[in-house]
Amino acid sequence: MSTQFETAPNRYVAARDGVKYAYRKLGVPGGTPLVLLQHFTGHMDSWDPAVVNGLARHRTVVIFDNAGIGVSSGRTPDSVEQMAIDAESFIGALELGEVDLLGFSLGGFVAQLMAARGKVPVRRMVSAGSAPQGGEEHLLQVVSAAFATNAQDVRLPLFFTPSEKSQAAGRAFLARATARTKDRDAESGEAIRNAQANAIIAWCADETAEHAVLKRIGQPTLIVHGSKDTMFPVTNAYSMFEQMSDATLIVYPDSAHGAIFQYSETFTSHVETFLSA
Amino acid sequence: MSTQFETAPNRYVAARDGVKYAYRKLGVPGGTPLVLLQHFTGHMDSWDPAVVNGLARHRTVVIFDNAGIGVSSGRTPDSVEQMAIDAESFIGALELGEVDLLGFSLGGFVAQLMAARGKVPVRRMVSAGSAPQGGEEHLLQVVSAAFATNAQDVRLPLFFTPSEKSQAAGRAFLARATARTKDRDAESGEAIRNAQANAIIAWCADETAEHAVLKRIGQPTLIVHGSKDTMFPVTNAYSMFEQMSDATLIVYPDSAHGAIFQYSETFTSHVETFLSA
Repeated sequence: MSTQFETAPNRYVAARDGVKYAYRKLGVPGGTPLVLLQHFTGHMDSWDPAVVNGLARHRTVVIFDNAGIGVSSGRTPDSVEQMAIDAESFIGALELGEVDLLGFSLGGFVAQLMAARGKVPVRRMVSAGSAPQGGEEHLLQVVSAAFATNAQDVRLPLFFTPSEKSQAAGRAFLARATARTKDRDAESGEAIRNAQANAIIAWCADETAEHAVLKRIGQPTLIVHGSKDTMFPVTNAYSMFEQMSDATLIVYPDSAHGAIFQYSETFTSHVETFLSA
Repeated sequence: MSTQFETAPNRYVAARDGVKYAYRKLGVPGGTPLVLLQHFTGHMDSWDPAVVNGLARHRTVVIFDNAGIGVSSGRTPDSVEQMAIDAESFIGALELGEVDLLGFSLGGFVAQLMAARGKVPVRRMVSAGSAPQGGEEHLLQVVSAAFATNAQDVRLPLFFTPSEKSQAAGRAFLARATARTKDRDAESGEAIRNAQANAIIAWCADETAEHAVLKRIGQPTLIVHGSKDTMFPVTNAYSMFEQMSDATLIVYPDSAHGAIFQYSETFTSHVETFLSA
Protein backbone atom coordinates (compact mmCIF):
# COMPACT_ATOMS: atom_id res chain seq x y z
CA MET A 1 0.00 0.00 0.00
CA SER A 2 1.35 3.43 -0.82
CA THR A 3 2.15 5.41 2.27
CA GLN A 4 2.09 8.88 0.72
CA PHE A 5 -0.86 11.05 -0.19
CA GLU A 6 1.14 12.54 -3.03
CA THR A 7 1.53 9.26 -4.93
CA ALA A 8 -1.43 7.07 -3.85
CA PRO A 9 -3.16 5.99 -7.05
CA ASN A 10 -6.80 6.70 -7.78
CA ARG A 11 -8.84 3.52 -7.44
CA TYR A 12 -12.47 2.91 -8.26
CA VAL A 13 -15.19 0.71 -6.87
CA ALA A 14 -18.65 0.14 -8.35
CA ALA A 15 -21.32 0.20 -5.63
CA ARG A 16 -24.78 -1.30 -5.65
CA ASP A 17 -26.31 2.17 -5.94
CA GLY A 18 -24.81 2.37 -9.45
CA VAL A 19 -22.18 4.94 -8.49
CA LYS A 20 -18.54 4.36 -9.34
CA TYR A 21 -16.69 5.80 -6.34
CA ALA A 22 -13.12 7.10 -6.67
CA TYR A 23 -10.87 6.58 -3.68
CA ARG A 24 -7.30 6.37 -2.47
CA LYS A 25 -6.10 4.02 0.22
CA LEU A 26 -2.83 4.55 2.02
CA GLY A 27 -0.99 3.92 5.25
CA VAL A 28 -0.35 0.85 7.34
CA PRO A 29 -2.42 -2.29 6.60
CA GLY A 30 -4.45 -3.95 9.35
CA GLY A 31 -6.52 -2.48 12.15
CA THR A 32 -9.67 -0.43 11.77
CA PRO A 33 -9.51 1.69 8.61
CA LEU A 34 -10.08 5.42 9.01
CA VAL A 35 -12.40 6.90 6.39
CA LEU A 36 -12.25 10.67 5.82
CA LEU A 37 -15.35 12.71 5.00
CA GLN A 38 -14.74 15.97 3.20
CA HIS A 39 -15.83 19.60 3.60
CA PHE A 40 -18.11 21.83 1.49
CA THR A 41 -17.10 21.60 -2.20
CA GLY A 42 -14.01 19.58 -1.22
CA HIS A 43 -12.67 16.56 -3.07
CA MET A 44 -9.78 14.15 -2.50
CA ASP A 45 -7.17 16.81 -3.23
CA SER A 46 -8.70 19.30 -0.82
CA TRP A 47 -7.21 17.32 2.07
CA ASP A 48 -4.02 18.57 3.64
CA PRO A 49 -1.27 16.08 2.69
CA ALA A 50 0.31 16.65 6.14
CA VAL A 51 -2.92 15.56 7.82
CA VAL A 52 -3.52 12.53 5.60
CA ASN A 53 0.11 11.37 5.73
CA GLY A 54 0.26 12.01 9.46
CA LEU A 55 -2.83 9.90 10.05
CA ALA A 56 -1.51 7.19 7.71
CA ARG A 57 1.67 6.71 9.72
CA HIS A 58 -0.05 4.26 12.04
CA ARG A 59 -3.22 3.09 10.24
CA THR A 60 -5.04 2.57 6.99
CA VAL A 61 -6.56 5.81 5.72
CA VAL A 62 -9.20 5.96 2.98
CA ILE A 63 -10.10 9.20 1.23
CA PHE A 64 -12.77 9.26 -1.45
CA ASP A 65 -14.99 11.40 -3.60
CA ASN A 66 -18.57 11.00 -2.50
CA ALA A 67 -21.29 10.65 -5.16
CA GLY A 68 -21.22 13.49 -7.68
CA ILE A 69 -17.84 14.85 -6.52
CA GLY A 70 -14.46 14.88 -8.29
CA VAL A 71 -13.95 11.75 -10.35
CA SER A 72 -16.77 9.74 -8.78
CA SER A 73 -19.92 9.33 -10.85
CA GLY A 74 -23.43 10.07 -9.64
CA ARG A 75 -25.22 13.21 -8.46
CA THR A 76 -24.25 15.50 -5.60
CA PRO A 77 -27.09 15.25 -3.09
CA ASP A 78 -28.61 18.30 -1.44
CA SER A 79 -29.15 16.57 1.91
CA VAL A 80 -26.79 15.31 4.59
CA GLU A 81 -28.86 12.15 4.83
CA GLN A 82 -28.28 11.21 1.18
CA MET A 83 -24.56 11.97 1.59
CA ALA A 84 -24.49 9.53 4.50
CA ILE A 85 -26.35 6.91 2.43
CA ASP A 86 -23.84 7.36 -0.39
CA ALA A 87 -20.85 7.10 1.94
CA GLU A 88 -22.34 3.94 3.46
CA SER A 89 -22.78 2.54 -0.03
CA PHE A 90 -19.11 3.27 -0.80
CA ILE A 91 -17.87 1.70 2.44
CA GLY A 92 -20.08 -1.33 1.84
CA ALA A 93 -18.75 -1.75 -1.71
CA LEU A 94 -15.16 -1.66 -0.42
CA GLU A 95 -16.10 -4.26 2.22
CA LEU A 96 -14.20 -2.33 4.87
CA GLY A 97 -16.17 -3.81 7.77
CA GLU A 98 -15.99 -1.71 10.93
CA VAL A 99 -14.50 1.73 10.33
CA ASP A 100 -13.37 4.86 12.14
CA LEU A 101 -14.70 8.10 10.66
CA LEU A 102 -13.08 11.52 10.48
CA GLY A 103 -15.45 14.17 9.18
CA PHE A 104 -14.43 17.77 8.63
CA SER A 105 -17.09 20.51 8.45
CA LEU A 106 -19.92 19.16 6.24
CA GLY A 107 -18.10 15.82 6.49
CA GLY A 108 -18.60 16.03 10.26
CA PHE A 109 -22.36 16.29 9.73
CA VAL A 110 -22.21 13.14 7.57
CA ALA A 111 -20.05 11.36 10.16
CA GLN A 112 -22.51 12.16 12.95
CA LEU A 113 -25.41 10.81 10.96
CA MET A 114 -23.53 7.66 9.96
CA ALA A 115 -22.48 6.96 13.56
CA ALA A 116 -26.09 7.44 14.70
CA ARG A 117 -27.62 5.38 11.88
CA GLY A 118 -25.34 2.41 12.41
CA LYS A 119 -25.85 1.08 8.87
CA VAL A 120 -22.10 0.76 8.70
CA PRO A 121 -20.38 -0.26 11.96
CA VAL A 122 -18.55 2.83 13.23
CA ARG A 123 -16.01 2.23 16.00
CA ARG A 124 -14.88 5.79 16.76
CA MET A 125 -15.54 9.19 15.22
CA VAL A 126 -13.62 12.43 14.85
CA SER A 127 -15.74 15.48 14.09
CA ALA A 128 -13.72 18.58 13.21
CA GLY A 129 -14.99 22.09 12.51
CA SER A 130 -18.49 20.71 12.54
CA ALA A 131 -21.93 21.60 13.90
CA PRO A 132 -24.89 19.68 15.28
CA GLN A 133 -28.33 19.68 13.69
CA GLY A 134 -29.82 23.05 14.55
CA GLY A 135 -26.31 24.46 14.95
CA GLU A 136 -25.13 27.96 14.09
CA GLU A 137 -23.80 28.45 10.56
CA HIS A 138 -22.69 31.50 8.59
CA LEU A 139 -21.77 29.65 5.40
CA LEU A 140 -22.94 32.02 2.67
CA GLN A 141 -21.90 35.21 4.46
CA VAL A 142 -18.44 33.89 5.28
CA VAL A 143 -17.85 32.42 1.82
CA SER A 144 -18.87 35.61 0.04
CA ALA A 145 -16.83 37.77 2.42
CA ALA A 146 -13.82 35.52 1.76
CA PHE A 147 -14.21 35.80 -2.02
CA ALA A 148 -14.58 39.58 -1.69
CA THR A 149 -11.09 39.85 -0.17
CA ASN A 150 -9.55 38.84 -3.53
CA ALA A 151 -6.99 36.81 -1.57
CA GLN A 152 -4.42 34.78 -3.50
CA ASP A 153 -6.48 31.72 -2.49
CA VAL A 154 -9.93 31.96 -0.94
CA ARG A 155 -8.91 29.42 1.69
CA LEU A 156 -6.60 31.97 3.33
CA PRO A 157 -9.44 34.19 4.61
CA LEU A 158 -11.87 31.26 4.80
CA PHE A 159 -9.80 28.77 6.82
CA PHE A 160 -7.37 30.97 8.78
CA THR A 161 -7.62 33.94 11.14
CA PRO A 162 -6.23 37.35 10.16
CA SER A 163 -3.27 36.96 12.55
CA GLU A 164 0.19 36.80 11.04
CA LYS A 165 0.80 33.37 12.55
CA SER A 166 -2.42 31.87 11.23
CA GLN A 167 -1.95 33.35 7.76
CA ALA A 168 1.62 31.97 7.66
CA ALA A 169 0.20 28.55 8.56
CA GLY A 170 -2.32 29.06 5.76
CA ARG A 171 0.39 29.73 3.19
CA ALA A 172 2.27 26.62 4.36
CA PHE A 173 -0.95 24.63 3.95
CA LEU A 174 -1.45 25.94 0.40
CA ALA A 175 2.12 24.99 -0.49
CA ARG A 176 1.55 21.46 0.82
CA ALA A 177 -1.81 21.18 -0.89
CA THR A 178 -0.30 21.37 -4.37
CA ALA A 179 2.43 18.80 -3.74
CA ARG A 180 0.47 16.13 -5.57
CA THR A 181 0.64 16.79 -9.30
CA LYS A 182 -0.69 13.59 -10.92
CA ASP A 183 -4.40 12.68 -11.13
CA ARG A 184 -5.64 15.70 -9.22
CA ASP A 185 -9.36 16.17 -8.88
CA ALA A 186 -10.82 19.16 -10.74
CA GLU A 187 -12.37 21.92 -8.64
CA SER A 188 -16.07 21.58 -7.83
CA GLY A 189 -18.51 23.65 -9.88
CA GLU A 190 -21.68 25.55 -9.17
CA ALA A 191 -24.00 22.54 -9.12
CA ILE A 192 -21.97 20.95 -6.30
CA ARG A 193 -21.75 24.25 -4.40
CA ASN A 194 -25.48 24.82 -4.56
CA ALA A 195 -26.49 21.29 -3.60
CA GLN A 196 -24.05 21.15 -0.67
CA ALA A 197 -24.92 24.66 0.53
CA ASN A 198 -28.56 23.61 0.64
CA ALA A 199 -27.63 20.52 2.65
CA ILE A 200 -25.61 22.54 5.16
CA ILE A 201 -28.24 25.22 5.58
CA ALA A 202 -31.03 22.66 6.00
CA TRP A 203 -29.01 20.70 8.60
CA CYS A 204 -28.41 23.81 10.69
CA ALA A 205 -31.94 25.11 10.22
CA ASP A 206 -33.40 21.96 11.77
CA GLU A 207 -33.97 23.37 15.24
CA THR A 208 -36.64 20.83 16.10
CA ALA A 209 -34.11 17.99 16.17
CA GLU A 210 -33.20 18.50 19.84
CA HIS A 211 -29.90 16.76 19.26
CA ALA A 212 -31.61 13.43 18.51
CA VAL A 213 -28.69 12.44 16.27
CA LEU A 214 -26.05 13.24 18.89
CA LYS A 215 -27.98 11.41 21.57
CA ARG A 216 -28.01 8.26 19.44
CA ILE A 217 -24.23 8.24 19.15
CA GLY A 218 -22.65 5.92 21.72
CA GLN A 219 -19.27 5.75 20.05
CA PRO A 220 -16.31 7.55 21.55
CA THR A 221 -16.05 10.85 19.69
CA LEU A 222 -13.32 13.44 19.38
CA ILE A 223 -14.62 16.96 18.72
CA VAL A 224 -12.01 19.38 17.36
CA HIS A 225 -12.60 23.04 16.61
CA GLY A 226 -10.86 26.35 15.92
CA SER A 227 -11.29 29.07 18.55
CA LYS A 228 -12.36 31.68 15.98
CA ASP A 229 -14.21 29.61 13.40
CA THR A 230 -16.40 32.14 11.60
CA MET A 231 -18.35 29.63 9.51
CA PHE A 232 -19.42 27.34 12.36
CA PRO A 233 -18.64 29.17 15.63
CA VAL A 234 -16.95 27.26 18.45
CA THR A 235 -20.21 27.26 20.44
CA ASN A 236 -21.25 24.43 18.10
CA ALA A 237 -18.40 22.33 19.48
CA TYR A 238 -19.36 23.14 23.06
CA SER A 239 -22.97 22.16 22.52
CA MET A 240 -22.03 18.95 20.69
CA PHE A 241 -19.72 18.10 23.58
CA GLU A 242 -22.43 18.70 26.15
CA GLN A 243 -25.01 16.60 24.33
CA MET A 244 -22.82 13.57 23.66
CA SER A 245 -22.25 10.73 26.08
CA ASP A 246 -18.61 9.97 25.30
CA ALA A 247 -17.00 12.96 23.65
CA THR A 248 -13.61 14.57 24.16
CA LEU A 249 -13.37 18.25 23.23
CA ILE A 250 -10.27 19.94 21.83
CA VAL A 251 -10.15 23.60 20.77
CA TYR A 252 -7.06 25.17 19.23
CA PRO A 253 -5.95 28.79 19.79
CA ASP A 254 -6.06 31.59 17.20
CA SER A 255 -7.61 29.38 14.55
CA ALA A 256 -10.58 29.43 12.22
CA HIS A 257 -12.38 26.83 10.12
CA GLY A 258 -9.08 25.31 8.93
CA ALA A 259 -7.76 24.66 12.46
CA ILE A 260 -6.89 21.05 11.60
CA PHE A 261 -4.67 22.28 8.75
CA GLN A 262 -3.14 25.09 10.84
CA TYR A 263 -2.22 22.57 13.56
CA SER A 264 -1.73 19.58 11.25
CA GLU A 265 0.94 17.90 13.39
CA THR A 266 -0.80 18.47 16.70
CA PHE A 267 -4.12 17.41 15.19
CA THR A 268 -2.81 14.14 13.76
CA SER A 269 -1.16 13.42 17.09
CA HIS A 270 -4.47 14.08 18.89
CA VAL A 271 -6.35 11.83 16.47
CA GLU A 272 -3.79 9.07 16.89
CA THR A 273 -3.97 9.32 20.70
CA PHE A 274 -7.76 9.18 20.48
CA LEU A 275 -8.04 6.30 18.01
CA SER A 276 -5.47 4.17 19.82
CA ALA A 277 -6.80 4.80 23.37
CA MET B 1 18.62 10.04 36.97
CA SER B 2 15.98 7.59 38.19
CA THR B 3 13.22 7.16 35.68
CA GLN B 4 10.53 5.82 38.00
CA PHE B 5 8.31 7.70 40.40
CA GLU B 6 8.26 4.68 42.67
CA THR B 7 11.99 4.74 43.38
CA ALA B 8 13.12 8.33 42.84
CA PRO B 9 14.91 9.38 46.03
CA ASN B 10 13.87 12.36 48.12
CA ARG B 11 16.32 15.20 47.68
CA TYR B 12 16.52 18.51 49.49
CA VAL B 13 17.58 22.00 48.59
CA ALA B 14 18.00 24.96 50.94
CA ALA B 15 16.54 28.11 49.42
CA ARG B 16 17.32 31.73 50.22
CA ASP B 17 13.94 32.10 51.94
CA GLY B 18 15.22 29.73 54.64
CA VAL B 19 12.99 26.85 53.57
CA LYS B 20 14.45 23.41 52.92
CA TYR B 21 12.44 22.12 49.97
CA ALA B 22 12.00 18.37 49.38
CA TYR B 23 11.84 17.24 45.77
CA ARG B 24 12.27 14.32 43.41
CA LYS B 25 13.74 14.60 39.95
CA LEU B 26 13.21 11.92 37.35
CA GLY B 27 13.02 11.27 33.65
CA VAL B 28 15.26 12.07 30.73
CA PRO B 29 18.03 14.66 31.28
CA GLY B 30 18.26 17.76 29.09
CA GLY B 31 15.60 20.00 27.61
CA THR B 32 13.26 22.23 29.58
CA PRO B 33 12.41 20.64 32.94
CA LEU B 34 8.73 20.24 33.77
CA VAL B 35 7.85 21.27 37.33
CA LEU B 36 4.60 19.93 38.79
CA LEU B 37 2.44 22.01 41.15
CA GLN B 38 0.15 20.07 43.42
CA HIS B 39 -3.54 20.18 44.40
CA PHE B 40 -5.27 21.09 47.68
CA THR B 41 -3.64 19.22 50.60
CA GLY B 42 -1.55 17.20 48.13
CA HIS B 43 2.12 16.30 48.53
CA MET B 44 4.64 14.46 46.37
CA ASP B 45 2.91 11.12 46.85
CA SER B 46 -0.48 12.48 45.85
CA TRP B 47 0.62 12.43 42.22
CA ASP B 48 -0.51 9.56 40.04
CA PRO B 49 2.61 7.46 39.28
CA ALA B 50 1.18 6.78 35.80
CA VAL B 51 1.05 10.51 35.10
CA VAL B 52 4.51 11.31 36.49
CA ASN B 53 6.18 8.31 34.83
CA GLY B 54 4.33 9.00 31.59
CA LEU B 55 5.53 12.59 31.54
CA ALA B 56 9.06 11.50 32.48
CA ARG B 57 9.40 9.23 29.45
CA HIS B 58 10.55 12.13 27.28
CA ARG B 59 11.68 14.89 29.68
CA THR B 60 12.96 15.83 33.12
CA VAL B 61 10.13 16.00 35.65
CA VAL B 62 10.46 17.66 39.05
CA ILE B 63 7.91 17.12 41.79
CA PHE B 64 8.28 18.85 45.14
CA ASP B 65 6.64 19.74 48.40
CA ASN B 66 5.99 23.46 48.51
CA ALA B 67 6.72 25.33 51.78
CA GLY B 68 4.99 23.80 54.79
CA ILE B 69 3.93 20.62 52.94
CA GLY B 70 5.11 17.02 53.37
CA VAL B 71 8.80 16.86 54.23
CA SER B 72 9.62 20.45 53.27
CA SER B 73 10.16 22.91 56.08
CA GLY B 74 8.41 26.27 56.40
CA ARG B 75 4.80 27.36 56.78
CA THR B 76 1.89 26.59 54.49
CA PRO B 77 0.75 29.96 53.14
CA ASP B 78 -2.89 30.98 52.96
CA SER B 79 -2.53 32.84 49.68
CA VAL B 80 -1.87 31.73 46.11
CA GLU B 81 0.60 34.59 45.77
CA GLN B 82 2.80 33.33 48.60
CA MET B 83 2.64 29.80 47.17
CA ALA B 84 3.92 31.20 43.87
CA ILE B 85 6.71 33.08 45.67
CA ASP B 86 7.69 29.88 47.48
CA ALA B 87 7.67 27.82 44.28
CA GLU B 88 9.80 30.47 42.58
CA SER B 89 12.20 30.32 45.49
CA PHE B 90 12.45 26.53 45.14
CA ILE B 91 13.03 26.70 41.37
CA GLY B 92 15.63 29.41 41.86
CA ALA B 93 17.45 27.35 44.49
CA LEU B 94 17.57 24.36 42.14
CA GLU B 95 18.91 26.64 39.38
CA LEU B 96 16.56 25.08 36.87
CA GLY B 97 16.59 28.10 34.53
CA GLU B 98 13.61 28.17 32.16
CA VAL B 99 10.89 25.69 33.12
CA ASP B 100 7.60 24.27 31.93
CA LEU B 101 4.87 24.20 34.58
CA LEU B 102 2.07 21.71 35.12
CA GLY B 103 -0.35 22.81 37.80
CA PHE B 104 -3.31 20.73 38.91
CA SER B 105 -6.24 22.37 40.72
CA LEU B 106 -4.76 24.77 43.32
CA GLY B 107 -1.43 24.09 41.57
CA GLY B 108 -3.00 25.50 38.42
CA PHE B 109 -3.72 28.75 40.24
CA VAL B 110 -0.06 28.90 41.28
CA ALA B 111 1.09 28.10 37.73
CA GLN B 112 -1.05 30.91 36.28
CA LEU B 113 0.37 33.42 38.70
CA MET B 114 3.96 32.28 38.13
CA ALA B 115 3.56 32.48 34.34
CA ALA B 116 2.08 35.97 34.67
CA ARG B 117 4.67 37.22 37.19
CA GLY B 118 7.65 36.08 35.13
CA LYS B 119 9.98 35.96 38.14
CA VAL B 120 11.00 32.53 36.93
CA PRO B 121 11.14 32.11 33.13
CA VAL B 122 8.18 29.91 32.18
CA ARG B 123 8.23 28.48 28.64
CA ARG B 124 4.88 26.65 28.52
CA MET B 125 2.17 25.90 31.05
CA VAL B 126 -0.36 23.14 31.60
CA SER B 127 -3.29 24.05 33.83
CA ALA B 128 -5.49 21.09 34.76
CA GLY B 129 -8.74 21.09 36.76
CA SER B 130 -8.09 24.72 37.57
CA ALA B 131 -9.98 28.02 37.75
CA PRO B 132 -9.21 31.64 37.01
CA GLN B 133 -9.27 34.39 39.64
CA GLY B 134 -12.93 35.06 40.26
CA GLY B 135 -13.76 31.56 39.06
CA GLU B 136 -16.48 29.25 40.37
CA GLU B 137 -15.51 26.95 43.23
CA HIS B 138 -17.45 24.56 45.44
CA LEU B 139 -14.49 23.37 47.50
CA LEU B 140 -15.95 23.06 50.99
CA GLN B 141 -19.33 21.68 49.87
CA VAL B 142 -17.76 19.09 47.59
CA VAL B 143 -15.13 18.03 50.12
CA SER B 144 -17.65 17.59 52.93
CA ALA B 145 -20.09 15.75 50.66
CA ALA B 146 -17.26 13.42 49.62
CA PHE B 147 -16.31 12.68 53.23
CA ALA B 148 -19.97 12.07 54.06
CA THR B 149 -20.11 9.18 51.56
CA ASN B 150 -17.76 7.15 53.78
CA ALA B 151 -16.09 5.86 50.63
CA GLN B 152 -13.11 3.54 50.94
CA ASP B 153 -11.00 6.54 49.92
CA VAL B 154 -12.37 10.08 49.75
CA ARG B 155 -10.73 10.55 46.37
CA LEU B 156 -13.23 8.14 44.78
CA PRO B 157 -16.22 10.50 45.19
CA LEU B 158 -14.01 13.62 45.05
CA PHE B 159 -12.03 12.93 41.89
CA PHE B 160 -14.29 10.61 39.87
CA THR B 161 -17.88 10.65 38.62
CA PRO B 162 -20.46 8.17 39.94
CA SER B 163 -20.37 6.19 36.66
CA GLU B 164 -19.11 2.63 36.81
CA LYS B 165 -16.35 3.43 34.31
CA SER B 166 -15.09 6.46 36.20
CA GLN B 167 -15.19 4.65 39.56
CA ALA B 168 -13.24 1.74 38.06
CA ALA B 169 -10.65 4.24 36.83
CA GLY B 170 -10.62 5.66 40.36
CA ARG B 171 -9.87 2.28 41.91
CA ALA B 172 -7.07 1.73 39.39
CA PHE B 173 -5.66 5.14 40.33
CA LEU B 174 -5.74 4.27 44.04
CA ALA B 175 -3.92 1.02 43.37
CA ARG B 176 -1.22 2.87 41.44
CA ALA B 177 -0.98 5.61 44.07
CA THR B 178 0.28 3.21 46.72
CA ALA B 179 2.94 1.58 44.55
CA ARG B 180 5.68 3.63 46.15
CA THR B 181 6.38 2.30 49.62
CA LYS B 182 9.65 3.97 50.68
CA ASP B 183 9.89 7.58 51.91
CA ARG B 184 6.23 8.39 51.42
CA ASP B 185 5.03 11.80 52.52
CA ALA B 186 2.63 11.82 55.48
CA GLU B 187 -0.91 13.04 54.86
CA SER B 188 -1.53 16.77 55.31
CA GLY B 189 -3.16 17.89 58.55
CA GLU B 190 -5.72 20.48 59.49
CA ALA B 191 -3.37 23.48 59.44
CA ILE B 192 -2.50 22.81 55.80
CA ARG B 193 -6.16 22.21 54.89
CA ASN B 194 -7.29 25.45 56.46
CA ALA B 195 -4.55 27.61 55.00
CA GLN B 196 -4.98 26.18 51.49
CA ALA B 197 -8.78 26.34 51.63
CA ASN B 198 -8.49 30.02 52.50
CA ALA B 199 -6.14 30.55 49.57
CA ILE B 200 -8.52 28.80 47.13
CA ILE B 201 -11.61 30.61 48.37
CA ALA B 202 -9.88 34.00 48.27
CA TRP B 203 -8.60 33.38 44.72
CA CYS B 204 -12.07 32.51 43.45
CA ALA B 205 -13.74 35.30 45.44
CA ASP B 206 -11.63 37.93 43.71
CA GLU B 207 -14.20 39.00 41.15
CA THR B 208 -12.62 42.40 40.59
CA ALA B 209 -9.58 40.86 38.94
CA GLU B 210 -11.15 40.88 35.44
CA HIS B 211 -8.76 38.15 34.36
CA ALA B 212 -5.73 40.45 34.74
CA VAL B 213 -3.54 37.43 35.50
CA LEU B 214 -4.70 35.46 32.45
CA LYS B 215 -4.26 38.48 30.19
CA ARG B 216 -0.63 38.81 31.29
CA ILE B 217 0.16 35.23 30.24
CA GLY B 218 1.69 35.14 26.77
CA GLN B 219 3.03 31.61 27.08
CA PRO B 220 1.36 28.78 25.18
CA THR B 221 -0.98 27.11 27.65
CA LEU B 222 -2.79 23.79 27.68
CA ILE B 223 -6.04 23.85 29.67
CA VAL B 224 -7.35 20.40 30.64
CA HIS B 225 -10.57 19.73 32.50
CA GLY B 226 -13.09 17.02 33.40
CA SER B 227 -16.57 17.38 31.92
CA LYS B 228 -18.28 16.95 35.29
CA ASP B 229 -15.83 18.54 37.70
CA THR B 230 -17.93 19.38 40.74
CA MET B 231 -15.26 21.33 42.63
CA PHE B 232 -14.30 23.70 39.82
CA PRO B 233 -16.97 23.35 37.10
CA VAL B 234 -15.88 23.08 33.46
CA THR B 235 -17.13 26.62 32.79
CA ASN B 236 -13.90 27.73 34.49
CA ALA B 237 -11.92 26.05 31.72
CA TYR B 238 -14.09 27.66 29.03
CA SER B 239 -13.61 31.13 30.50
CA MET B 240 -9.87 30.67 30.96
CA PHE B 241 -9.66 29.54 27.34
CA GLU B 242 -11.58 32.56 26.11
CA GLN B 243 -9.47 35.03 28.08
CA MET B 244 -6.05 33.68 27.13
CA SER B 245 -4.15 34.59 23.98
CA ASP B 246 -2.55 31.23 23.23
CA ALA B 247 -4.45 28.46 24.97
CA THR B 248 -5.52 25.03 23.78
CA LEU B 249 -8.55 23.55 25.51
CA ILE B 250 -9.08 19.83 26.18
CA VAL B 251 -12.07 18.43 28.07
CA TYR B 252 -12.46 14.73 28.81
CA PRO B 253 -15.79 12.86 28.90
CA ASP B 254 -17.50 11.50 32.02
CA SER B 255 -14.84 12.83 34.34
CA ALA B 256 -14.63 14.94 37.47
CA HIS B 257 -11.83 16.73 39.28
CA GLY B 258 -9.43 13.79 38.81
CA ALA B 259 -9.80 13.71 35.01
CA ILE B 260 -6.02 13.67 34.53
CA PHE B 261 -5.79 10.51 36.65
CA GLN B 262 -8.82 8.89 35.00
CA TYR B 263 -7.27 9.47 31.57
CA SER B 264 -3.64 9.22 32.68
CA GLU B 265 -2.33 7.80 29.40
CA THR B 266 -4.29 10.13 27.17
CA PHE B 267 -3.39 13.08 29.37
CA THR B 268 0.35 12.40 29.34
CA SER B 269 0.18 11.97 25.58
CA HIS B 270 -1.64 15.32 25.28
CA VAL B 271 0.92 17.03 27.50
CA GLU B 272 3.80 15.54 25.49
CA THR B 273 2.21 16.66 22.20
CA PHE B 274 1.75 20.14 23.65
CA LEU B 275 5.21 20.53 25.20
CA SER B 276 7.02 19.22 22.12
CA ALA B 277 4.98 21.19 19.54
